[in-house]
Amino acid sequence: MPTIILLRHGQSIWNLENRFTGWTDVDLSDLGRKEAQNAGEKIIKSGLKPDFFFTSYLKRAIHTLQIAANVMDLNWIPVIKDWHLNERHYGALQGLNKAETAKIYGDEQVLKWRRAYDITPPTLEPDDKRNPANDPKYQGLSCNEIPLTESLKQTVDRVRSCWQEVIEPRVRIYNTVLISAHGNSLRALAMMLLHLSPQEVLSFEIPTGQPLVFTADSHMNIIDKKYL
Amino acid sequence: MPTIILLRHGQSIWNLENRFTGWTDVDLSDLGRKEAQNAGEKIIKSGLKPDFFFTSYLKRAIHTLQIAANVMDLNWIPVIKDWHLNERHYGALQGLNKAETAKIYGDEQVLKWRRAYDITPPTLEPDDKRNPANDPKYQGLSCNEIPLTESLKQTVDRVRSCWQEVIEPRVRIYNTVLISAHGNSLRALAMMLLHLSPQEVLSFEIPTGQPLVFTADSHMNIIDKKYL
Repeated sequence: MPTIILLRHGQSIWNLENRFTGWTDVDLSDLGRKEAQNAGEKIIKSGLKPDFFFTSYLKRAIHTLQIAANVMDLNWIPVIKDWHLNERHYGALQGLNKAETAKIYGDEQVLKWRRAYDITPPTLEPDDKRNPANDPKYQGLSCNEIPLTESLKQTVDRVRSCWQEVIEPRVRIYNTVLISAHGNSLRALAMMLLHLSPQEVLSFEIPTGQPLVFTADSHMNIIDKKYL
Repeated sequence: MPTIILLRHGQSIWNLENRFTGWTDVDLSDLGRKEAQNAGEKIIKSGLKPDFFFTSYLKRAIHTLQIAANVMDLNWIPVIKDWHLNERHYGALQGLNKAETAKIYGDEQVLKWRRAYDITPPTLEPDDKRNPANDPKYQGLSCNEIPLTESLKQTVDRVRSCWQEVIEPRVRIYNTVLISAHGNSLRALAMMLLHLSPQEVLSFEIPTGQPLVFTADSHMNIIDKKYL
């Protein structure tokens, strides 16, 4: 049966500092590395053996995958890294402390930016050094693809294209795949796979380091979901 | 200019214990991890920026690559893992201490197994637990592909197919590639690229953790080679 394991990266240094991260490429904290190791151990205990890995361009997801793969003795498994699996871009909020931002803009506004489906946080100025166009990782992207901010809806749209073109064809061949990614890119995948409404997806939250396993039938309809 | 960086993995636990390793999947020692980090730092200082990575199915080469890539902040670069880049298979010698093996068989015989071009070490019995056919990594290989021992010549033949079909086409597209592999699989690549004779290749030894850079012209003739 086609099996898709979603793994949200462990705690990052900026999670620890309570800052908006988005596409900022911060590494795992010590706790995050421990969470990744625990995730690998849980997958071993479940008896599942992934045979293809996907991750984003961001090192907190890549390292989570590498640590979990090493625990599972699956270092040799192929990995596709795809920027479409990156966290939602948080625009000009990236780098700001969440509590301070709430003090300046008010809790209600921050909640809208974080939790409304189609509202974007303030847009980065094109000459802002945080513009992904300045990052060598994203040199291969077209202007239209490089976000200066994103709503969850926009994140869902780009994750959908990755699912359809990159991941789903390989689920059909390889059967068990593991996707190590981020709160919002995994929420986007869950929305597609579980046919969640915009309202439902907003309250769907995958805890860090807890592998969520979807089992599909041959038409790629999800017939079972469980946390390990 | 097409640029190929060869990186021999850092010290493994069995290098430290002076045992024949071959396809045994042992991890890096602490010194090996340090060597991988130094290699990444040397590549940064050289100004080279790899845009495609290749490695074997063995974790000592994979981890060397991951550590060096992290130092270079190039975690996101695509990686192809290919068993053709594995170390030479050492047959029934795998796991034996080199000094003890020399005591039993004599220095001259061991030197032949290690250094002659077309002599194979003693062959593994098919029911030996060290037979790669028992390892999930190699389930996709045909019977003809799974070695029970290998001469350096046989290693060169399989590395050649990987160069021609997997690596060279990407060197032409990506320009700068890094190959993290093993003493004998890298020696095989050097033999092909530098047109070394069997006699010459036997004395060609790449030190661990020291990136060796080949620069090629558009016909893929090597016009410069240097250690970083």
